[in-house]
Amino acid sequence: MSLDGFIAGPNQSQENPLGEGGEQLHEWALGLAAWREPHGLQGGEVNASSKVIEQSRENLGATVMGRNMFGGEGPWGDDPWEGWWGDDPPFHVPVFVVTHHAREPLIKQGGTTFAFVTDGIESALEQAREAAGDQDVGLSGGANIAQQYLKAGLIDELQIHLVPVLLNDGARLFDSLGDARVGLECTRAIEAPGVTHLTYRVMK
Amino acid sequence: MSLDGFIAGPNQSQENPLGEGGEQLHEWALGLAAWREPHGLQGGEVNASSKVIEQSRENLGATVMGRNMFGGEGPWGDDPWEGWWGDDPPFHVPVFVVTHHAREPLIKQGGTTFAFVTDGIESALEQAREAAGDQDVGLSGGANIAQQYLKAGLIDELQIHLVPVLLNDGARLFDSLGDARVGLECTRAIEAPGVTHLTYRVMK
Repeated sequence: MSLDGFIAGPNQSQENPLGEGGEQLHEWALGLAAWREPHGLQGGEVNASSKVIEQSRENLGATVMGRNMFGGEGPWGDDPWEGWWGDDPPFHVPVFVVTHHAREPLIKQGGTTFAFVTDGIESALEQAREAAGDQDVGLSGGANIAQQYLKAGLIDELQIHLVPVLLNDGARLFDSLGDARVGLECTRAIEAPGVTHLTYRVMK
Repeated sequence: MSLDGFIAGPNQSQENPLGEGGEQLHEWALGLAAWREPHGLQGGEVNASSKVIEQSRENLGATVMGRNMFGGEGPWGDDPWEGWWGDDPPFHVPVFVVTHHAREPLIKQGGTTFAFVTDGIESALEQAREAAGDQDVGLSGGANIAQQYLKAGLIDELQIHLVPVLLNDGARLFDSLGDARVGLECTRAIEAPGVTHLTYRVMK
């Protein structure tokens, strides 16, 4: 997240999925071995962020994401979009994509499967929990679905990677929350090159 | 600042200067000896925030604030508002209030003086620098004047006290920055009870 609260820049598009300037939010990760390894890349650096990335994958059994993060728009069509991540996506767990448009599951290499859930966020979470067994369920993004889950009280923990950048515009992580009262407690703050990792427990 | 970027809640008023919910942004400080002492109060706790507060006052020679933070609205009138802080305000240095409305200086107890600057933020900074000598000049707030100074490239360092609260509405610290490109580097992150203290260097 940028210091002014955005998790993507303005004008997101197929050519520019993170929006204008949004790539700055991920720069801290790109050179790290812990990021490169799940992306099928060798080598890379180790710093204070490495452990944070490793821990976030360690006990992950499944993940949920919104349609906007998966990419594409509206009905899938005859030659449907298969995501941004190629044949071997970096998730390596079952992924549940919340969408209005039904579709058969997609099986990718390396343990990543995409299931398309059309009956809402609770159902997606339920299916992800079942797939994860006794492991954790992650929420990958983007902003819209994170807000829906926050409002529904279905998030236990927030991991914010706060980047010292001001985007001025784009998709805010905390927006459209209406009257939802979300109580948070910071449980960890780790300073690392180009990013501060903040962990918050959502109080129930 | 709240995790969603506000430094005051909505509907600020004479009765509720921090806006609805805004008092939550300061709760971490109120019980600390380091906060109580400059406010003329005895006793209090010591925790990881204490040093942060002490250091921010240590080398402070003068401070600048916006009219909205000083309080009141429009022309001063016959019985002018004297600020929120009583006879012995917690600043203990010369304070320069940027306003559209001229007024004689106010001399308070304990080393706090309020001078009212009507010829702009550069002038206020210049006067504050002169008053501070070889000490630092602080910018107390609020959001509007912070944005003006940021846009003008006149800020060297930002101290953000990030509180795990979502206000949903109010005065954003980072707003109305237009096309200003502000480069930041996080130089310190300190986790403390109820707050994370983040220090950013503004790159020139």
